[in-house]
Amino acid sequence: MRDQLLRDLAEQLAGGRLTIDDFVARAARSDVADLGDAQIDLDRRRRCGFPEVVYGEGKTVEQLAKIFDALVAAGVDVLATRVAAEKATELALRYPTAKYNPVARTFRIPLSTATAMPCGRVVIVTAGTSDLPVAEEARETALWTGAEVDLIQDVGVAGPQRLLAKLPEIRKADVVVCVAGMEAALPSVLGGHVDCPVIGVPTSVGYGASLGGLTALLSMLTSCAANVTVVNIDAGFKGGYLAGLIAARCRRN
Amino acid sequence: MRDQLLRDLAEQLAGGRLTIDDFVARAARSDVADLGDAQIDLDRRRRCGFPEVVYGEGKTVEQLAKIFDALVAAGVDVLATRVAAEKATELALRYPTAKYNPVARTFRIPLSTATAMPCGRVVIVTAGTSDLPVAEEARETALWTGAEVDLIQDVGVAGPQRLLAKLPEIRKADVVVCVAGMEAALPSVLGGHVDCPVIGVPTSVGYGASLGGLTALLSMLTSCAANVTVVNIDAGFKGGYLAGLIAARCRRN
Amino acid sequence: MRDQLLRDLAEQLAGGRLTIDDFVARAARSDVADLGDAQIDLDRRRRCGFPEVVYGEGKTVEQLAKIFDALVAAGVDVLATRVAAEKATELALRYPTAKYNPVARTFRIPLSTATAMPCGRVVIVTAGTSDLPVAEEARETALWTGAEVDLIQDVGVAGPQRLLAKLPEIRKADVVVCVAGMEAALPSVLGGHVDCPVIGVPTSVGYGASLGGLTALLSMLTSCAANVTVVNIDAGFKGGYLAGLIAARCRRN
Amino acid sequence: MRDQLLRDLAEQLAGGRLTIDDFVARAARSDVADLGDAQIDLDRRRRCGFPEVVYGEGKTVEQLAKIFDALVAAGVDVLATRVAAEKATELALRYPTAKYNPVARTFRIPLSTATAMPCGRVVIVTAGTSDLPVAEEARETALWTGAEVDLIQDVGVAGPQRLLAKLPEIRKADVVVCVAGMEAALPSVLGGHVDCPVIGVPTSVGYGASLGGLTALLSMLTSCAANVTVVNIDAGFKGGYLAGLIAARCRRN
Amino acid sequence: MRDQLLRDLAEQLAGGRLTIDDFVARAARSDVADLGDAQIDLDRRRRCGFPEVVYGEGKTVEQLAKIFDALVAAGVDVLATRVAAEKATELALRYPTAKYNPVARTFRIPLSTATAMPCGRVVIVTAGTSDLPVAEEARETALWTGAEVDLIQDVGVAGPQRLLAKLPEIRKADVVVCVAGMEAALPSVLGGHVDCPVIGVPTSVGYGASLGGLTALLSMLTSCAANVTVVNIDAGFKGGYLAGLIAARCRRN
Amino acid sequence: MRDQLLRDLAEQLAGGRLTIDDFVARAARSDVADLGDAQIDLDRRRRCGFPEVVYGEGKTVEQLAKIFDALVAAGVDVLATRVAAEKATELALRYPTAKYNPVARTFRIPLSTATAMPCGRVVIVTAGTSDLPVAEEARETALWTGAEVDLIQDVGVAGPQRLLAKLPEIRKADVVVCVAGMEAALPSVLGGHVDCPVIGVPTSVGYGASLGGLTALLSMLTSCAANVTVVNIDAGFKGGYLAGLIAARCRRN
Amino acid sequence: MRDQLLRDLAEQLAGGRLTIDDFVARAARSDVADLGDAQIDLDRRRRCGFPEVVYGEGKTVEQLAKIFDALVAAGVDVLATRVAAEKATELALRYPTAKYNPVARTFRIPLSTATAMPCGRVVIVTAGTSDLPVAEEARETALWTGAEVDLIQDVGVAGPQRLLAKLPEIRKADVVVCVAGMEAALPSVLGGHVDCPVIGVPTSVGYGASLGGLTALLSMLTSCAANVTVVNIDAGFKGGYLAGLIAARCRRN
Amino acid sequence: MRDQLLRDLAEQLAGGRLTIDDFVARAARSDVADLGDAQIDLDRRRRCGFPEVVYGEGKTVEQLAKIFDALVAAGVDVLATRVAAEKATELALRYPTAKYNPVARTFRIPLSTATAMPCGRVVIVTAGTSDLPVAEEARETALWTGAEVDLIQDVGVAGPQRLLAKLPEIRKADVVVCVAGMEAALPSVLGGHVDCPVIGVPTSVGYGASLGGLTALLSMLTSCAANVTVVNIDAGFKGGYLAGLIAARCRRN
Repeated sequence: MRDQLLRDLAEQLAGGRLTIDDFVARAARSDVADLGDAQIDLDRRRRCGFPEVVYGEGKTVEQLAKIFDALVAAGVDVLATRVAAEKATELALRYPTAKYNPVARTFRIPLSTATAMPCGRVVIVTAGTSDLPVAEEARETALWTGAEVDLIQDVGVAGPQRLLAKLPEIRKADVVVCVAGMEAALPSVLGGHVDCPVIGVPTSVGYGASLGGLTALLSMLTSCAANVTVVNIDAGFKGGYLAGLIAARCRRN
Repeated sequence: MRDQLLRDLAEQLAGGRLTIDDFVARAARSDVADLGDAQIDLDRRRRCGFPEVVYGEGKTVEQLAKIFDALVAAGVDVLATRVAAEKATELALRYPTAKYNPVARTFRIPLSTATAMPCGRVVIVTAGTSDLPVAEEARETALWTGAEVDLIQDVGVAGPQRLLAKLPEIRKADVVVCVAGMEAALPSVLGGHVDCPVIGVPTSVGYGASLGGLTALLSMLTSCAANVTVVNIDAGFKGGYLAGLIAARCRRN
Repeated sequence: MRDQLLRDLAEQLAGGRLTIDDFVARAARSDVADLGDAQIDLDRRRRCGFPEVVYGEGKTVEQLAKIFDALVAAGVDVLATRVAAEKATELALRYPTAKYNPVARTFRIPLSTATAMPCGRVVIVTAGTSDLPVAEEARETALWTGAEVDLIQDVGVAGPQRLLAKLPEIRKADVVVCVAGMEAALPSVLGGHVDCPVIGVPTSVGYGASLGGLTALLSMLTSCAANVTVVNIDAGFKGGYLAGLIAARCRRN
Repeated sequence: MRDQLLRDLAEQLAGGRLTIDDFVARAARSDVADLGDAQIDLDRRRRCGFPEVVYGEGKTVEQLAKIFDALVAAGVDVLATRVAAEKATELALRYPTAKYNPVARTFRIPLSTATAMPCGRVVIVTAGTSDLPVAEEARETALWTGAEVDLIQDVGVAGPQRLLAKLPEIRKADVVVCVAGMEAALPSVLGGHVDCPVIGVPTSVGYGASLGGLTALLSMLTSCAANVTVVNIDAGFKGGYLAGLIAARCRRN
Repeated sequence: MRDQLLRDLAEQLAGGRLTIDDFVARAARSDVADLGDAQIDLDRRRRCGFPEVVYGEGKTVEQLAKIFDALVAAGVDVLATRVAAEKATELALRYPTAKYNPVARTFRIPLSTATAMPCGRVVIVTAGTSDLPVAEEARETALWTGAEVDLIQDVGVAGPQRLLAKLPEIRKADVVVCVAGMEAALPSVLGGHVDCPVIGVPTSVGYGASLGGLTALLSMLTSCAANVTVVNIDAGFKGGYLAGLIAARCRRN
Repeated sequence: MRDQLLRDLAEQLAGGRLTIDDFVARAARSDVADLGDAQIDLDRRRRCGFPEVVYGEGKTVEQLAKIFDALVAAGVDVLATRVAAEKATELALRYPTAKYNPVARTFRIPLSTATAMPCGRVVIVTAGTSDLPVAEEARETALWTGAEVDLIQDVGVAGPQRLLAKLPEIRKADVVVCVAGMEAALPSVLGGHVDCPVIGVPTSVGYGASLGGLTALLSMLTSCAANVTVVNIDAGFKGGYLAGLIAARCRRN
Repeated sequence: MRDQLLRDLAEQLAGGRLTIDDFVARAARSDVADLGDAQIDLDRRRRCGFPEVVYGEGKTVEQLAKIFDALVAAGVDVLATRVAAEKATELALRYPTAKYNPVARTFRIPLSTATAMPCGRVVIVTAGTSDLPVAEEARETALWTGAEVDLIQDVGVAGPQRLLAKLPEIRKADVVVCVAGMEAALPSVLGGHVDCPVIGVPTSVGYGASLGGLTALLSMLTSCAANVTVVNIDAGFKGGYLAGLIAARCRRN
Repeated sequence: MRDQLLRDLAEQLAGGRLTIDDFVARAARSDVADLGDAQIDLDRRRRCGFPEVVYGEGKTVEQLAKIFDALVAAGVDVLATRVAAEKATELALRYPTAKYNPVARTFRIPLSTATAMPCGRVVIVTAGTSDLPVAEEARETALWTGAEVDLIQDVGVAGPQRLLAKLPEIRKADVVVCVAGMEAALPSVLGGHVDCPVIGVPTSVGYGASLGGLTALLSMLTSCAANVTVVNIDAGFKGGYLAGLIAARCRRN
């Protein structure tokens, strides 16, 4: 149907009955579900590899449901992040097949037909126990992309034995997501032990000179390890999404 | 009456019975309504094109009412911003013709005699749904200035189809108000598509490195698009006011 | 010629011989002059009202000349900013009709056929004598847009008489560009005296807590005057460009 | 009694029975009332002109009362700042002659024997109505120092008429305390109108780029007016205290 | 002559031949010497107690001479700050009675007729030897205001004996100017020893966490001593000017 | 038992049946108690001199109890910091010999067999009464390390007599922990009086330019006293721990 | 030889003649070339996938040559970054097969035996011409890792046609490196168009509110596009290295 | 002689012929050598354990020589830091026994009679070769305090083998000084391996998000290792001085 639309528009354009601006605007319109206060990007899977993920913060249950319905109708395996527990309880009544992870605060409505495909391996590592919620968000997101995911907790550098004990497991990764707050020394140390990208996710764990996660962020950005890249503070979703993208490419080639 | 006062003062000055400082002070006094803890600027419409807008934050219902009364008495079309819902409920009882916008948190007491005049067109654009309260404040303010106003929501750059679909509508603007948080890339992108000023209103939407809106602010200030100018974080009022000033000038000439 | 190209592309698209992405890419290509390390935007005047302005900082004389030639060939009234004096001397030999302003550091190659059209009035105001280079850059840019421009210097608030003496002249503006460093109180004061937009251009003039212009920038952004909007530090070009856009709209309507 | 102590200590020192360090420590001890978790400085009036002022924030009613009792016993006219309303209610029962200012949040126990002496004049000026609590703290403190104090409210620069109307009154000051938030342009403007020091007290009034008062602070520090000096954000107490010190010196000479 | 001008203007105003805005603008004009790129404030001594001081940074010898001539013609005791040595050498040829202080970088052209009047005492104190240039600028400025000035050097808190040895001399001050870099603990310590205002002048002396003087500035602003007020980093001129203003008021009353 | 494990692993390594990485991982594993979401470092006392201290913030009572049990089983004298009062009440029921300090918010389960050994002396000094909670955390931690500890309160520099009176006592220290907020001048002053290290612990006490303790932190870092070193804001635990380490070394030698 | 060493050490450990610490230290030692002031990591290729890259900044020609020799001796394809042109000229004499890229400032000594293997594709995109040096550093590094690399220049968002024209080429990437300064909107826009990771490299291009690249950095970190990750400002090397790691993994699987 | 002075002063005090302030001032004066623009603290060795160290930055050769002479005359083993090479060359002519370290930029005039006493051991560790100048300053200072000092270079965490190889040597320290720039992960890692204090000295090595050493500073301050304390950026002198103080105390007890 979209193809027919484009053909029609192109003919109008070729015939001089549409400006190029209007041609592009109308062509684009068919890729978007217009819900009034939200515009759902239905072409995203084609362009970007994965469909749109819903950011739950500050949206009402009604708004979320309206978006979920549009996505389900388009055959999308829905993932929403930052969904508070109370909202999840209400939403679960509407979407009985959905799964809510209360630590990650993610809400997912899996498609029954989705089949796991062989794929790269993501290893998520945390420096301390307080980093867990961010790590869980990363884990849920990476799982949603179809990657194989391991989670290794509480191996911060102040107790070096803890990391040494887990290194063989970590070295199996195709991509590491390293979640750490305070001075965030762990990504640099990990970076020296593995042969794959390390995605640093700084967390707001800490006080005083931690500056709400800014110190961890700056520390990761200036890492002396060449294989460390960084996303926003507490951005477990981004860490998991990028890891999933890299793991997917491992699979595909 | 004011003319007579000035004449009298000028004669005293010319006669050496007033210093120049005292002359200026007494002349100025007649332009101000002295309410004790607030000084209402009654000469503002003449000097600045529009009357004074009331900033509601931190004022009590009694204080607001006292100011509203003084303005209504002076024949002003009252607009107050940042008025909490509870205060608005109380105030609505006193001013039955007033209109409260709960998303924008604006309170307006329109003059029955105000007549819409032909005027320039303001288009307000938001990057995401969370930017709506700031955009609504801008919309209410621009409407109060007499401009024609359109609001286009949720066309952030991560889904480029969404913006393309709306471009023909946006290009009709005399001035664009672009409301965006996080990295605020939208004003730069818009700036490359339109031939009018783009007023960027950064919002505090985002987390971590968003720094409460500072990143959006800095991003807009360093925009590579030459037609982007910027107001304070979450300053929907300023965005709408400036847009109204520009639109009004379109009309006048 | 561009029309024929579009028609051809549209027919290929309609015939299924082009994807929509390739269609758009090829259509876009004709709007750009590809100079290797620079892509000159030839469609800009249509989209944005004015042609592209060249940012001279960090470009060699050869690079500048290559870009100037492409623009002149396209019939553009060339304006380049941040051109150092030595480069200007060399360039002047190649472009004998060009004018260099050594305070503003702008280089302009006017078209002989350009005719001044009636237009809005821009008034540029500086707080101190050190703000002059930024003000001159604004002035040259606004003149290039076709606006009528006045420049009023050194009327900072510490000597209030100086501003009072110039107010009648300033109040004739359709838009004011206010260039100020240090605490940048002048835009707020001006904002209370005029009925048009005030574009604040903070400068890096000052020392210590001036923080290289950040204090002036923050001060302007938090101005208590509703009609003050702000551009980047030392961004005389942007101030002049936006003023020109607003003045042009005065003319057109 | 203190004289006798010093004489005894000096004789021990001269006789070699005390080291100089111990001599100084013991001499100092008699100037301090040791209340366990607080050390009250009883020598302060001699050294610093005024007795110690009690900072109420974070102290319990019991702690405050213990300190008040020690000060009253030493014949001091007690002033406490940042005293919450609930604490003041309890304290008022114990000190029936005390006066609590709920806007300033100051608590004062005046000495019946204190006699007002002729003294310099302090004028406190606010930019907006939200600056009032800080201004009231300054007023209470300056009154406590014995100065004559005027308070002029809501004369921010966006409405220049308001300041002009009050200038003759402000120019009578020996020292001006200027309380302002946001861009804090008022001290610079005032500085150009008066022949006495202007003590700027930045307030945390504002949002976004106001940065909790930092912008007002930086703006005042970089004021182009040479007679503006600055204290901490919201530091009404310091503004009033310094004004009192300057006014007192006027009196004395 | 100015009186006659005012009388004429007032009559025109009273007769309706001048608007109030134009009246004020023309009245103000007579207080300003318009030098093209500089507007010299000739009314300043009446309004502000002292004439205008010239900020030499970034002005050419020609510009300085033009301003000096205007001031000398108006009978002003000229003081210029931040005058580089090379410029001073040239200027000294034109103004043979001038005095240049190479450490303070101040240039002064004293009036032969100026007579020292009895006045308050300013004591300037430095924490370290590197603070001297700023202290000298303060000293020259305070001397120019007519105050009696002492300078006490290198008594930072790390060597407490040094300060103790100088305390009796410091306690004779009517106002103390305390110049300090790094952590700037000295103003707080001094504040506990004297009964007059302490004007803190933070300097950019230090490295690393000194942040170019910001740490000293913030430290002084948060001083636990109530009698400490602060000016901009390296602002010796402001420190001396304010001290002079306070000392002058001591004399006058 | 650990020795036997190492011997076995080493033989496997020597025999080529283990890679060096796996050898190290397995050897490390025996030093860690794996509690699922926490990895307890049991080798720490050997490596670092003291066992692991538990950071209580954000851990549930159940999580704390699980960790306490593992530590008690390993014969460790448990210390937990940042334990809220409600959690402490619950925990006290399970560990009847434990001691909770509600000001310091520390929870300790002492071993009956621990014997105090002769050791260096730690003196903890506070600038104001609001610094007490941080100082108490430092005190509890230093006591746990076996050091002798004195606490001297409220001797900030604004009242110099207070410090002088306590100097002889402070000079007996082997290491001083100085806890101060606001401008934190006390460590510099103390540094000039003692012949041992001064560990500065900045506190978040203060407002405005105190920036939540950053000013105190920066001030201490730039101290002109050479013997001042610094830990994180409000890090009473670190101050006490380091003091304990230094005091312990005094004992040992 | 290393195997024999480990076997010997393991036997000593098993026999109790070595502590575990000493065992680990001696085993580690054989992986490092100790050059006195530099320790060259020879085991890095095994652990991290690629050998060590030399950071040239601040190293003398002699130091660089010493390191190069050690690496060449170990059979490493040498890459050095931030090598100034003068140093490169000297080094080129010693290493005649080396290649110096003066824009990237990279120095490479390729191994004759290195064979290009089929691998993923890296596309490097710049926003403006000033971003080229950083992009070239990324390109050289990615080439060194064996990836296929394309470079597309000057397609910043202010001229949207420029990007559209290049999109089909960019969409062929396995990983995009996006180099941009100022507000750095390009990575967000690109992120919405491609299905692979986008590594943002912020540059210090810009002035004023660009804050030396911090604004670009913060903007990229808060990108609304989920597939954008970030490295340090001007870190072309890291961008190219990470891209190479991802591309390599495409190849391997 | 000092004893006789104190006795005389005490008698005057006891006899009422001196105030206590004057008594203290005169007693203090004998501890200071007054050189005009510098006050040399001669009592410092008694109070603080070591004599005064001269900060060479910004002092002329003449000023340095004047201070050196005063110190030598008082029998002090002179140490000066931040002495530029040219100054050192001149000074070496005057003080033939002096030693200049051009990397550390320290100048020392050792006393022939100084005898090394048994003392604690300081180990200085650097993360990279660029940290050497700061480490050398620390080493020279620690040596001057009489400590035994080892220097271990270039063992940053990205190459973990390098640190492991040196751990046995590092573990012999009584105090570690860890010099690191960029993300400064090394102190945290070291902190987990040793049983003594680790003094972190952040360096300004790095670019972009290193922020001139601020990131390293913040990272060290938020270290998860409890035994890490921090001094100012590039403050090798302080690191060495504090290490010396701790080592000295090991010796003394």
